Amino acid sequence: MKEIGVGILGFGTVGAGVADGLLRNRETFAQRLGVDVVLRKIADLDITRDRGVTIPEGILTTDASSVISDPSIDIIVELIGGIGIAKKFILDAIRAKKSVVTANKKLLAECGSEIFGAAGEAGVDIYFGAAVGGGIPIIRSLREGLAGNEIESIKGILNGTCNYILTRMAREGARFDEVLKDAQRLGFAEADPTLDIDGWDTAHKASILASLAYGFFISPHDFEVKGIRDLSTVDVTYAKELGYSIKLVAHVSREGDEVGVRVSPTLVPENHLLAAVNDVFNAVLVHGDLSDDLMFYGKGAGRAPTASTVLGDIGDIARNISNGGARYKSAISVANEGILALKVPANNVSSFYVRMMVEDRCGTLGKLTTIFGEHGVSILQATSHKQLKGHEVEGAIPVVIRTHKASSGAVDSALEEIESAGIIRGKAIKMCMI
Amino acid sequence: MKEIGVGILGFGTVGAGVADGLLRNRETFAQRLGVDVVLRKIADLDITRDRGVTIPEGILTTDASSVISDPSIDIIVELIGGIGIAKKFILDAIRAKKSVVTANKKLLAECGSEIFGAAGEAGVDIYFGAAVGGGIPIIRSLREGLAGNEIESIKGILNGTCNYILTRMAREGARFDEVLKDAQRLGFAEADPTLDIDGWDTAHKASILASLAYGFFISPHDFEVKGIRDLSTVDVTYAKELGYSIKLVAHVSREGDEVGVRVSPTLVPENHLLAAVNDVFNAVLVHGDLSDDLMFYGKGAGRAPTASTVLGDIGDIARNISNGGARYKSAISVANEGILALKVPANNVSSFYVRMMVEDRCGTLGKLTTIFGEHGVSILQATSHKQLKGHEVEGAIPVVIRTHKASSGAVDSALEEIESAGIIRGKAIKMCMI
Repeated sequence: MKEIGVGILGFGTVGAGVADGLLRNRETFAQRLGVDVVLRKIADLDITRDRGVTIPEGILTTDASSVISDPSIDIIVELIGGIGIAKKFILDAIRAKKSVVTANKKLLAECGSEIFGAAGEAGVDIYFGAAVGGGIPIIRSLREGLAGNEIESIKGILNGTCNYILTRMAREGARFDEVLKDAQRLGFAEADPTLDIDGWDTAHKASILASLAYGFFISPHDFEVKGIRDLSTVDVTYAKELGYSIKLVAHVSREGDEVGVRVSPTLVPENHLLAAVNDVFNAVLVHGDLSDDLMFYGKGAGRAPTASTVLGDIGDIARNISNGGARYKSAISVANEGILALKVPANNVSSFYVRMMVEDRCGTLGKLTTIFGEHGVSILQATSHKQLKGHEVEGAIPVVIRTHKASSGAVDSALEEIESAGIIRGKAIKMCMI
Repeated sequence: MKEIGVGILGFGTVGAGVADGLLRNRETFAQRLGVDVVLRKIADLDITRDRGVTIPEGILTTDASSVISDPSIDIIVELIGGIGIAKKFILDAIRAKKSVVTANKKLLAECGSEIFGAAGEAGVDIYFGAAVGGGIPIIRSLREGLAGNEIESIKGILNGTCNYILTRMAREGARFDEVLKDAQRLGFAEADPTLDIDGWDTAHKASILASLAYGFFISPHDFEVKGIRDLSTVDVTYAKELGYSIKLVAHVSREGDEVGVRVSPTLVPENHLLAAVNDVFNAVLVHGDLSDDLMFYGKGAGRAPTASTVLGDIGDIARNISNGGARYKSAISVANEGILALKVPANNVSSFYVRMMVEDRCGTLGKLTTIFGEHGVSILQATSHKQLKGHEVEGAIPVVIRTHKASSGAVDSALEEIESAGIIRGKAIKMCMI
């Protein structure tokens, strides 16, 4: 049976999982592929620490370049992460005419155009299934299974850390910072959780999904990214009273020649599919013009699930190689570069949840709703809620306003006027709704 | 841009959907594939009836053979269904070295070995994504995305007609035959619903999933297939009282060298992912050793969703052709032919729901539970229920017994003894549980 050689760069959690999977499931993998995928080398600066997987003699090395240049290696798997050295190694591998598998969402979101361009020129494959959704085959499904669809929208819960924190805040009514500390203790959150809780990890994934669905590169720096750091128990509670869960959702959708992308805490009705996605699980809801609604659900991170997707990519490239060559033509289409445009954040349309501490004076609600009307924002419902223990504001009433569909900008300008009119205390809290 | 020609055999609901999709989304499809997929011919005996899609001049024909032999056609899409002429056309196409896309679950389940064998010999691709799950990319995900996994189990709700009927029976407490009539009126069930409601459509799909996951052909005639025709409102009601929904589930799992497959009405706990799958929707829950639990949810049938998957398959073959040739090696592995075996139905292990109309006499429950014990079936819970209006049995008490995990055969032999002991009225109703 034809052998295809694999070299792994980065022997961290995922690297160890991929090595373990390649060694453990080698026979089944070969049976399904019709080629034998052989782990030849693993490069890491630290090759002594125990990763809980037994690596045969002569595979571990500290010299990544020797792995890239090894003629017995056809596929380079980059699992170092971040930009910098990971980017250099990927470009080196591409120049050496090696196909590449990476799970590096940050790199692809920031430098996708450069990486895919280089792969296209060199005529090698670059697969990145594990960059979004961990063990969920969403990239593959979008790129291949749904290739015949016009994608109307994608809604994703793409960060397990945030979803775990939000799930516990809702269940226990606990405060964000308390749950975060606990999540760090339990290993569900990094020591430096910034990338996750401020929404950037989700934004990188949203940018990859949107670029893939719409055929032009969309930078996470060009759309609205809001995390869960400032989410108050007050809003988790009031949302629950109104029948919603709060999830950190990546929204991607197309209207005409514009693509709207945003990452923000979002109120999801309790009977909605995404509301049932709890703890560290991820889910992606895709609506294609032919497929209608599809949901993909699974573990969005972790050693084995991520390895599962990396192995799927390795298998595809192995098939491509045994099938005559790389398939790079279809890595990612940029045919809509300059044809479709990213919507400016203010034009994103949604219904909104707005919570304000309203002055307990006669007529304030009237004034407030009038201002919304003047800005073209029509109101679905206004409810006053009980003050929440530990969050009381003397002489004010918590009021939640749910709007009909309106542009984010219109709601913002209404809120500016309301805040300066002295009829509410502090700033209003605004979140979009599904 | 390189052109790939497509010919469709069968201009029914799905055929019309595929033609519509190919014509409508041609540009986007080409951008993503890097090749231009062109609809060249559609063959059907009736080419006059309006299918709600405008087909350009010269594409419709009544002569299928001319489509198969047309040198400008690279891919034959078989959407006639059934065995017989569909099988002949597929084999003709394979002999003519054309790659084939089919949604024909019955043909693949009954003659998969022959069809795939022929494709392998001829060196052409055969794709069958739409044979299972309609618009859900489950075949692709199993075959490629999860190729590196040992599949531990698959549980699927694979028939929209049955799921629609079961959903309404549970919601309305309505009788099977009433809901079936209504479903037929609304077009959710065929005039002859046998294939659906007796579980054979689900069995064909289960056989394809199991063969794909385990690398040997499993015939639907060799495993237990039970439909929903005899499902009583009584059990739907009692199941609900105990916190379960009843779904028609295809169970596939591996223990050691044996693969267990069965299709049967199954009690699913209300908090289980599959319990939330209602109406005509399908869902497949896959557990891989690396991926952990994955769920795929979407429309399992219908013109556009099925077309979505057929287009995905056409796109893959188009990529393969432009990439040097067919990929048939990996169509379906039969490496475990003669190595793994199908479990005999009696050995399938599960926990069971057993409902009996027990003689209202002192000591009957004791006798009954003793008999279970003697057959090695241990009982989780026994509950007596109120008689259900319209289903009263004079002098008997409805008793539901939930067992711990036991072999189907052990439960059956216990029930035989119980039925002959004259302590229950009529036959016991037995269903497996998730």
